[in-house]
Amino acid sequence: MEELKQEVYEANMLLPKYNLVTFTWGNVSGIDRDKNLLVIKPSGVDYDQLSPEKMVVVDLDGNVVEGELNPSSDTATHCVLYKQFPNIKGVVHTHSPWAVSFAQAGLDIPAAGTTHADTFYGPIPVSRAMEEDEVVTDYEKQTGDVIVETFLKRHIDPDEVPAVLVNDHGPFTWGKSAFQAVHNAVVLEEVAKMAYHSLQLNPHHIEMDHYLLDKHYLRKHGRNAYYGQAIDK
Amino acid sequence: MEELKQEVYEANMLLPKYNLVTFTWGNVSGIDRDKNLLVIKPSGVDYDQLSPEKMVVVDLDGNVVEGELNPSSDTATHCVLYKQFPNIKGVVHTHSPWAVSFAQAGLDIPAAGTTHADTFYGPIPVSRAMEEDEVVTDYEKQTGDVIVETFLKRHIDPDEVPAVLVNDHGPFTWGKSAFQAVHNAVVLEEVAKMAYHSLQLNPHHIEMDHYLLDKHYLRKHGRNAYYGQAIDK
Amino acid sequence: MEELKQEVYEANMLLPKYNLVTFTWGNVSGIDRDKNLLVIKPSGVDYDQLSPEKMVVVDLDGNVVEGELNPSSDTATHCVLYKQFPNIKGVVHTHSPWAVSFAQAGLDIPAAGTTHADTFYGPIPVSRAMEEDEVVTDYEKQTGDVIVETFLKRHIDPDEVPAVLVNDHGPFTWGKSAFQAVHNAVVLEEVAKMAYHSLQLNPHHIEMDHYLLDKHYLRKHGRNAYYGQAIDK
Amino acid sequence: MEELKQEVYEANMLLPKYNLVTFTWGNVSGIDRDKNLLVIKPSGVDYDQLSPEKMVVVDLDGNVVEGELNPSSDTATHCVLYKQFPNIKGVVHTHSPWAVSFAQAGLDIPAAGTTHADTFYGPIPVSRAMEEDEVVTDYEKQTGDVIVETFLKRHIDPDEVPAVLVNDHGPFTWGKSAFQAVHNAVVLEEVAKMAYHSLQLNPHHIEMDHYLLDKHYLRKHGRNAYYGQAIDK
Repeated sequence: MEELKQEVYEANMLLPKYNLVTFTWGNVSGIDRDKNLLVIKPSGVDYDQLSPEKMVVVDLDGNVVEGELNPSSDTATHCVLYKQFPNIKGVVHTHSPWAVSFAQAGLDIPAAGTTHADTFYGPIPVSRAMEEDEVVTDYEKQTGDVIVETFLKRHIDPDEVPAVLVNDHGPFTWGKSAFQAVHNAVVLEEVAKMAYHSLQLNPHHIEMDHYLLDKHYLRKHGRNAYYGQAIDK
Repeated sequence: MEELKQEVYEANMLLPKYNLVTFTWGNVSGIDRDKNLLVIKPSGVDYDQLSPEKMVVVDLDGNVVEGELNPSSDTATHCVLYKQFPNIKGVVHTHSPWAVSFAQAGLDIPAAGTTHADTFYGPIPVSRAMEEDEVVTDYEKQTGDVIVETFLKRHIDPDEVPAVLVNDHGPFTWGKSAFQAVHNAVVLEEVAKMAYHSLQLNPHHIEMDHYLLDKHYLRKHGRNAYYGQAIDK
Repeated sequence: MEELKQEVYEANMLLPKYNLVTFTWGNVSGIDRDKNLLVIKPSGVDYDQLSPEKMVVVDLDGNVVEGELNPSSDTATHCVLYKQFPNIKGVVHTHSPWAVSFAQAGLDIPAAGTTHADTFYGPIPVSRAMEEDEVVTDYEKQTGDVIVETFLKRHIDPDEVPAVLVNDHGPFTWGKSAFQAVHNAVVLEEVAKMAYHSLQLNPHHIEMDHYLLDKHYLRKHGRNAYYGQAIDK
Repeated sequence: MEELKQEVYEANMLLPKYNLVTFTWGNVSGIDRDKNLLVIKPSGVDYDQLSPEKMVVVDLDGNVVEGELNPSSDTATHCVLYKQFPNIKGVVHTHSPWAVSFAQAGLDIPAAGTTHADTFYGPIPVSRAMEEDEVVTDYEKQTGDVIVETFLKRHIDPDEVPAVLVNDHGPFTWGKSAFQAVHNAVVLEEVAKMAYHSLQLNPHHIEMDHYLLDKHYLRKHGRNAYYGQAIDK
């Protein structure tokens, strides 16, 4: 557990390094799948005040198991993602500005080029707007539920598209480790910026060809067996 | 008073740290509500030449009480805000570029997402253009008057939306301390940037649902008693 | 002359400090009005290789009077400006990206707000496109001539609007010293950035009221006697 | 060969210095034309882990001649360019965001002003979208072939326009050395940024006059004999 706390601490510290956060607007968690315990940033603590010992350990229902501080207010969303996406071991939430700009516009980030395809096997989906009752009751848990619903309804594999835009809110990314989830958050912000500018230059046609998407995603992620298949398998 | 001068000095130095100012285009003040005296940046002094001793103490009519330098040329505007908004203890003025861009366009910054709602309980209003006589006579005081008019006419509570865009000019923010006013100036610039890009992506619909605005603002600012009420109460 | 070389050297070094240049794309000069000699950056020398001794002294016809290196290829343009604008003592040329974007679009930078008015008493004019024969023969001198023509034809006082955009090229600024010319180049880039975003938000109406322009320009530049007069006097 | 490895190493290290790369998204190569061997960055190695010894030596068919690591996955593209463009000695590939934005929009970067003309004698062409079979088989080599086809079909001299945008992918630049290829990559990104903003301001007319393009390109590149000739000679 100490090792995971160290890793999650270091992953959190990468958020300001990569200019993904203003003030405390972001958090990273990692999970120990054997123990079903996750380590997450404490709520509202400045990044320059963080240390591995301040990380909070919670179970998958969000109960604090270890740590003196309250866990991130987004903990319930992280828990849903770990429960529903069984292959992931790290989750990141930020308010990185280019990704938020798409979330606030209620638009997917289109798969506009190979930079996108090297990491994400299709558009980054934006979730539907949440209903009033979903916001009023168990908001953070229901945020996670709406993310999962997005992937189910649109037949998107969360291992292939490890990111989402929560409508009028911002991005969550995930990965096989806390570090990989941060990596994906960096790529997400970069491809959001590029897609924005491409859309301004040419609003009508920036979606890349599927075979180019296949080539780049599958080349990098080594799933040659799936080569040439439709994106929504 | 020495403590307040130190605090106002430190708050001023945060403006260049957060990239909110070019040259000397910004100033922070703080007030001692018991003495009705405010401390403000001297006019036209470079940030790397500032020190706590150079801060200027003025009364609420803008008369210098202590200090060798002239106070900021915007002092009269600060005074109006302290007089009319009784709960605030710090005021910031900058020409931060994203906020100015909306001010020059004559547009509110819409409440486009949760980043906005975490700090501001509704759109950041832009004031009306000032009339010629308001500009010619007592310009800086009348700037304050037009800000106050904006909040009155639109039934906006300045404690809930601690920021304004002065038309064709730039932003003022405030808060319960000089530091909180700077914090709000940073958030303002960030949400202005995000709202700009969301509007370019989707000009027709970026205003967030009111219940999501309620949830995020009230969750963070602890006014559960007001939960679910209309924004213009 | 050594003092001027030191000043011009320091003014040149401010261009990379304020992020106004890529590689060697910029130059600053200063003039000694008694001797009618100007000091200018040598052509194509990297900023980190500059020193006061490398500055080149030329007369107002561009003949090298002192220095081992060739003067900036834009020297002839500087000379025209010093001859025709008798009150200026410093000139700056850069390819700063926001100003260039307007130059390439063939558009003035509108006076969109008080940030602009604090330094520039009206829009920054873009010069007309140069004719083929003006480009083929004495190009750099004719560039200066077209700048001067722009101010004459549009009745703009170069002391009140110390900047121009050369069509499809980039900005020149000037001032009462090399340092003030650099200051104006920084302001130009900042107001170009802001005007760009304001125009994207509201293409139809971003020009500020004349009395607000008057107030801010005249307040700062101390010409109260001209208060309320039309901009094109 | 050791000298070339040192040069290519240093040229690679300029990519992060000039903010052209995120993570490992870029590579530089250089060629020894006598030996027909090229030196290229190893694949997927972080820039802060690079050293001259880690550079990989390959022949013009991409076979590794020296080095313990795999060469960049883009090596086959570099090889095609060296074979078909006989005067070049350095090649750079990046995913620099402004250039990628045009590539994803499927648009040339127009020759919008003198900043562009000082380096590139005409628009930066975007290649056509690749066909499925070109992507499936020998993708990286065929990427090079499509680049060469673009220059042939449009009668563009790769020595005069040392850059291309691969459709939905990103830029390649080249030059008479690895360093010059990096220089061109920096200029490309800067002119892409400027052209983007000029196009947003004025979508209808930002292409510069041919005689101004001639003047600036030929002035800088010393081909006075070609002065005044059409761009597509």
